[in-house]
Amino acid sequence: MKINKYVDISTLDKEAKKDYIDRHSAFIHCENNAKAGEKFKVKVKVGDEYMHPDDTDHYIAYVQLWNGEKMLAQANFVEGALGNAPQNLEVDFYIVPTKKMKLTAYAFCTKHGLWESDMVEVSVD
Amino acid sequence: MKINKYVDISTLDKEAKKDYIDRHSAFIHCENNAKAGEKFKVKVKVGDEYMHPDDTDHYIAYVQLWNGEKMLAQANFVEGALGNAPQNLEVDFYIVPTKKMKLTAYAFCTKHGLWESDMVEVSVD
Amino acid sequence: MKINKYVDISTLDKEAKKDYIDRHSAFIHCENNAKAGEKFKVKVKVGDEYMHPDDTDHYIAYVQLWNGEKMLAQANFVEGALGNAPQNLEVDFYIVPTKKMKLTAYAFCTKHGLWESDMVEVSVD
Amino acid sequence: MKINKYVDISTLDKEAKKDYIDRHSAFIHCENNAKAGEKFKVKVKVGDEYMHPDDTDHYIAYVQLWNGEKMLAQANFVEGALGNAPQNLEVDFYIVPTKKMKLTAYAFCTKHGLWESDMVEVSVD
Repeated sequence: MKINKYVDISTLDKEAKKDYIDRHSAFIHCENNAKAGEKFKVKVKVGDEYMHPDDTDHYIAYVQLWNGEKMLAQANFVEGALGNAPQNLEVDFYIVPTKKMKLTAYAFCTKHGLWESDMVEVSVD
Repeated sequence: MKINKYVDISTLDKEAKKDYIDRHSAFIHCENNAKAGEKFKVKVKVGDEYMHPDDTDHYIAYVQLWNGEKMLAQANFVEGALGNAPQNLEVDFYIVPTKKMKLTAYAFCTKHGLWESDMVEVSVD
Repeated sequence: MKINKYVDISTLDKEAKKDYIDRHSAFIHCENNAKAGEKFKVKVKVGDEYMHPDDTDHYIAYVQLWNGEKMLAQANFVEGALGNAPQNLEVDFYIVPTKKMKLTAYAFCTKHGLWESDMVEVSVD
Repeated sequence: MKINKYVDISTLDKEAKKDYIDRHSAFIHCENNAKAGEKFKVKVKVGDEYMHPDDTDHYIAYVQLWNGEKMLAQANFVEGALGNAPQNLEVDFYIVPTKKMKLTAYAFCTKHGLWESDMVEVSVD
């Protein structure tokens, strides 16, 4: 399993490469502080400035949310769930932390494999 | 596969039965109108007035979102994702409709099987 | 969720209907007796006399194996796992029974929804 | 995501370490040659000489089968599918190759994360 990792696209020259990397990368959107024992929203979004196709043979089939070495949740999608047009796949997971978390998300493209987000640390009071 | 269906708990007498039915049922929360080709948020929440355990051997393992006979997405959770305490599992799916939808959600409890939500019709302009 | 059920195709007249029903139905292949605490093989096969397409927008996305109201296992497939040509999807699960089982399998087609197998009773010594 | 990899346990001294590594590792069992367009059986087995628990809070939740950077299939299990006693989880996938494959399998333990098998090359005629 090759794991592709996000690269800051502002450091890249070629438009095609910016597009390729951005549209496949998983991004975590959440607060950086949570309350122990309370529900905490974590948005996983695929792509930031560029959109990924939702073609029958080329789409994002699943995203996963991990805390350290523990997978918390996985959401699978069928082709067409995003209307068979380019989009930024998005899902909000609600988890309940008990202590400090190190969150990472993954997106799997049926043509271009697995992509890892930057890690996000969340302190928990 | 026995599919358990939601029953309006205000019609029930026994507190234990209200609790049992409510905490297992999937509920769909969304607008009743969507725009074709635009992202549309659908929250699937398990339980309304009562919470379900997140015990190691008794938890909600997955929820599914269906449009008519087509499954759009499934989210799987490991035990402990909700802090090993009672909660209302919740996930927001973002789908892109192209025409009128009939949405149904399912929740699967590792001890008490599959539960179906009421169906929600969404018109699409 | 409409659940389509297998119909003995020898009772059907129309060839197209035999084909449609047979190629979508899940079939359970296993011994009818198991030993408690020992691994027991259960083959789930989709279709018997007819094969289902593995097209990019039309394929079997998952099969599930249930014992009564408990789902034991689910296997998901991406399009192309069967070579993008008609096939009978097949997976062997190995489960360990502790008492009498009532097994049912399901197959989900991305175009034609969910299909339920006949139920198979397995005695356990 | 830390990916743990199999280490030849005969090179290890400590019994506890041999057990830990062996019982978590995914192993691929298949022929090393396949026929293009024909069904090909790939057994994924977790552990070789040692068995993994199937406890409610500690079990193998899924295995995946990859060909290069493409995930072909994923099988999820609920706790108890292996009788809540130590076992070697096992599943047979049937895939249809069209050209040479580089197969890798993964096993996910709810307590000890993701484990990668050795890669197996399969020539295809």
